[in-house]
Amino acid sequence: MRGRTFIISGPSGVGKSTVLKALMEQRDKLYFSVSATTRSPRTGEVDGVHYHFLDEETFQNWISHDEFLEYAEYVGNFYGTPKRFVDEAMDRGEDVILDIEVQGALQVTEKRPDTVRIFLAPPSWEELERRLIQRGTDDPQRIHRRLQRAREEILTANTYDYVVINDCVEQAVKELDAIITAEHCRPSQQLMRLN
Amino acid sequence: MRGRTFIISGPSGVGKSTVLKALMEQRDKLYFSVSATTRSPRTGEVDGVHYHFLDEETFQNWISHDEFLEYAEYVGNFYGTPKRFVDEAMDRGEDVILDIEVQGALQVTEKRPDTVRIFLAPPSWEELERRLIQRGTDDPQRIHRRLQRAREEILTANTYDYVVINDCVEQAVKELDAIITAEHCRPSQQLMRLN
Repeated sequence: MRGRTFIISGPSGVGKSTVLKALMEQRDKLYFSVSATTRSPRTGEVDGVHYHFLDEETFQNWISHDEFLEYAEYVGNFYGTPKRFVDEAMDRGEDVILDIEVQGALQVTEKRPDTVRIFLAPPSWEELERRLIQRGTDDPQRIHRRLQRAREEILTANTYDYVVINDCVEQAVKELDAIITAEHCRPSQQLMRLN
Repeated sequence: MRGRTFIISGPSGVGKSTVLKALMEQRDKLYFSVSATTRSPRTGEVDGVHYHFLDEETFQNWISHDEFLEYAEYVGNFYGTPKRFVDEAMDRGEDVILDIEVQGALQVTEKRPDTVRIFLAPPSWEELERRLIQRGTDDPQRIHRRLQRAREEILTANTYDYVVINDCVEQAVKELDAIITAEHCRPSQQLMRLN
């Protein structure tokens, strides 16, 4: 059976990496999509693992050949989701996880309406703020901006197919797992098995 | 959180009772809807457990007061799904399972579009025939009619939200369980929790 593609969006600080790491450990046949970027590798970053590192000419070439499911420019660098690796994984029968934000999710959905979109939400605004402070990577002003952006993003959450609230990691992973299982029970996937 | 309603349809012999019994044992907060009927109780049948036994006047009265989610006449008797018990269960936060066939499912969906419809399908036609023979309740002619009807019903399966193939009971129950969990992650259910 061919795999399906799942977009996971969610505000900074919601705990997406932790939840996705636990999901990948728990569930078989999941492929975590690696983005392409024109920015330089940081120390320790491996090509094909953390990113596919491309020079700008190659990236533009891929854009003109419609090789991206979505792409965007961010502080002078390009970031995008290459179609090829996603399609290869689905052909192998693996489900694909795309960790992309709201704007990218819209681009993917336009190209591939059968993509399943999941929004990972915090249990409360207070808890999101607490997590951002605890992470210790941002100063108060930056945390304030992140919270404002989170409030904007959550307004789009009702356009997603599912909303998973990350109150407890174990429960959030259980719900993501259930969503993937359920989406494999769509008639279009199942009825081709019965002749 | 308010419960949701799930319709399970499927051809005779597919193993619906076995699967639903296992699901009810495994999952909490599930209410199995009991139908109302005008037919007389058989030996051992208990009012309110196997059916709500109504006289014809009461049944007609309930129809005129729009008290049924769906109803039908079958060989001289009426059968229907009373709204009241379904709504009471959902208000208690329980999910409701309606074991009804294709025509009834259409009636319910028209009244309540947020009802989730699941079609339980056999792994193959040969296997469905084998199960009907093994059950030993029908003569060959009746089995032939049941198989023909199953082929008609399966044509409507692609209008359902989900199709679960009952190849192995444990897997079918796992998929039903996942579908119920996933449907509780719909934005309309989740976003009211986040203010």
